[in-house]
Amino acid sequence: MPMISLAELQRRIDAGDLSPEASIAQACEAIDAQDKTIGAFVCRPGTVGAASAGPLRGIAVGIKDIIDTSNLPTEMGCPAIYGGWRPRADAAVVMMLKQAGATIIGKTTTTAFAANDPTATLNPHHHGHTPGGSSAGSAAAVGAGMIPLALGTQTGGSVIRPASFCGTAAIKPSYRLLPTIGVKCFSWTLDTVGLFAAGVADLAHGLSAITGRAELLPRAAMQAPRIGIVTQEFAGAAEASGDEALRIAAAAAERAGASVRALALPEIVAEAWRIHPVVQDFEAHQSFAWEYRVNYDAMPPLLRGRLDESRDITPAAYDAARGVANQARRALARVFEDIDVLLTLSALGAPPEGLASTGDPRFNRLWTLMGVPCVNVPAYVTADGLPVGVQIIAPFGGDARALEAARFVEAALARR
Amino acid sequence: MPMISLAELQRRIDAGDLSPEASIAQACEAIDAQDKTIGAFVCRPGTVGAASAGPLRGIAVGIKDIIDTSNLPTEMGCPAIYGGWRPRADAAVVMMLKQAGATIIGKTTTTAFAANDPTATLNPHHHGHTPGGSSAGSAAAVGAGMIPLALGTQTGGSVIRPASFCGTAAIKPSYRLLPTIGVKCFSWTLDTVGLFAAGVADLAHGLSAITGRAELLPRAAMQAPRIGIVTQEFAGAAEASGDEALRIAAAAAERAGASVRALALPEIVAEAWRIHPVVQDFEAHQSFAWEYRVNYDAMPPLLRGRLDESRDITPAAYDAARGVANQARRALARVFEDIDVLLTLSALGAPPEGLASTGDPRFNRLWTLMGVPCVNVPAYVTADGLPVGVQIIAPFGGDARALEAARFVEAALARR
Repeated sequence: MPMISLAELQRRIDAGDLSPEASIAQACEAIDAQDKTIGAFVCRPGTVGAASAGPLRGIAVGIKDIIDTSNLPTEMGCPAIYGGWRPRADAAVVMMLKQAGATIIGKTTTTAFAANDPTATLNPHHHGHTPGGSSAGSAAAVGAGMIPLALGTQTGGSVIRPASFCGTAAIKPSYRLLPTIGVKCFSWTLDTVGLFAAGVADLAHGLSAITGRAELLPRAAMQAPRIGIVTQEFAGAAEASGDEALRIAAAAAERAGASVRALALPEIVAEAWRIHPVVQDFEAHQSFAWEYRVNYDAMPPLLRGRLDESRDITPAAYDAARGVANQARRALARVFEDIDVLLTLSALGAPPEGLASTGDPRFNRLWTLMGVPCVNVPAYVTADGLPVGVQIIAPFGGDARALEAARFVEAALARR
Repeated sequence: MPMISLAELQRRIDAGDLSPEASIAQACEAIDAQDKTIGAFVCRPGTVGAASAGPLRGIAVGIKDIIDTSNLPTEMGCPAIYGGWRPRADAAVVMMLKQAGATIIGKTTTTAFAANDPTATLNPHHHGHTPGGSSAGSAAAVGAGMIPLALGTQTGGSVIRPASFCGTAAIKPSYRLLPTIGVKCFSWTLDTVGLFAAGVADLAHGLSAITGRAELLPRAAMQAPRIGIVTQEFAGAAEASGDEALRIAAAAAERAGASVRALALPEIVAEAWRIHPVVQDFEAHQSFAWEYRVNYDAMPPLLRGRLDESRDITPAAYDAARGVANQARRALARVFEDIDVLLTLSALGAPPEGLASTGDPRFNRLWTLMGVPCVNVPAYVTADGLPVGVQIIAPFGGDARALEAARFVEAALARR
């Protein structure tokens, strides 16, 4: 089933060709038809309505189940500890969606506490493969054509990687462009709320409506972006399918008029890649202190093992890691003096077979630590029918630029 | 009743002269005796125990009631919206206290959502005056000698100001030294968890035990700190009692061997003072979106009015304000190249009469935005018996330095 374009729904609703109620009803039907197989949703409200005003009226949105909702349970992907948990308030970003007129259509599956223990959700492109994680249900629901918009979060690679695996567009915006109030914390330095949608213009319309930032709306496409290709060799080798995606995207962008050149990142940036786990795990011991200390036996095994292994990180090591991150952010800002955006891998390659692993965030985690906006664009589909994406990255605060350059690459790939 | 020294309790417990259980029982008795009058506590557990291990065993701690506790309600100072609310998990900092062996002795009063609507708590030094806010109960409980340690939070001046008013030592540490996970958010750029205790060494022992950072423990006192006096003239005039506190503290420090000189702050730092409310109020509209939109009529009137007045802050104004704050943080770091610490007012002056106002945070808000550690030291007591403090401020991350310099000033004032 094709994905649902948010921008196209907006056009039809604005023109009076589709009522908000009918748009929401279509999403409900698509979920009813597909979710028994895919398993992208944890729960859905008994009745759903549609707002009559707001830029997102008639837009059905899925909310990752680590994000608080006042009228639906929030189980954190861990019913053993949070079964039936009902927060009092909506998360800030849920309220922003509602104020923009969106309809919360349900809570989507998440790996427990947005860590690595997999969900039962299937990849909509190939049921024998993982949809990725941690934002599994949000990526799968958009990729399957059930809903036009979904919220995820990324601490390592939990938005961009599942988007690549499920063949959707996605944005991990600049750090704190979207508030994390009411979102279960893993690492306060890293956690970032992001969006999944069918295409880059859909992301732009969605992000602009949520934030009230008109500058994020699509403008005339970039003419000849200066693109730096980075392979993140410090993160290890990609798979052949990942390398192929990057090659295809770079070639398409160049043919479309971009200036494209390979770029080496400063050593301090590679060092920031290395210390990302120090920041994440030191903060995780504080964020999950209650779960880990009071509910140790009920903790998901992969996350618990990760916490077991990282108990001895000292405050001094954490302080040093934050110092490296700060230096690297400044060094990365200087990299952008000569280019508009970076283009790099969204994942090692195609989604792994089976559901035992959600894949590897090694090509994502640096950018989460840098706080810079990243947009996934599907680059190609393997012979086995598996999507592989690439990510376009702009400087901190350059979310509009990241989206414009991603539209350029998306259009270039469509002409291929 | 004199305040209870945490460090002295630790010494007696370590020496076997006091059992942890007896220490906790003494705090319970002091609360029973005084709190009917002062009103510092919102609720207390039915039974309290004492840990047998940990650096804070036998230490009774009061927790501001915007901080989540798993075994006591968390009503946010607003029972109209959060009456009886029971979070699932303990806040990160509550777990850190428990892991250090502390006993959570009760939840302390807070202005609703840590804003400006006053509590009914009385100033322990003069019942006709405000204890300040928003961390009213924590300051009053320590100031009254009920407990040796309490947690507060500061977004404008909600730790340092009530400490000044209640005659306690207090630290607002560097931004995110203490985690805010599980603390009701007002502004994620500003909210900072802080501590109240009898003296500066008590703060150091408490903060070190909570964070596991040995470098915060008191070392040999600073010999001759280089102190820059700032009057924050951009914030308007202080009252005579505030000016007197600063004069007394500066003179005492100089007599004790400090080099003391007046210092003007760079204009960009004054500009940061001006834009603090833009950051706070823009973020507050997101943090309190559910309360403001869904529970408007039940909102506390001063906070609701503040939100009514700040509805039109644009994302562009917010972005510009954050840019000013970043520039000012860099400029302030350069100010510390020639001095060790800054010394400035903790409040306009003595605590105002009556309970209608919690006082004015105008001499606090800049430092919250800068994220730098601030320590309140009681400077003198007015003829009416009202305490007035001063604050010692170090560069970001220099919490140990702030505490050492504050001990120097505290000792100098004691010799006066």
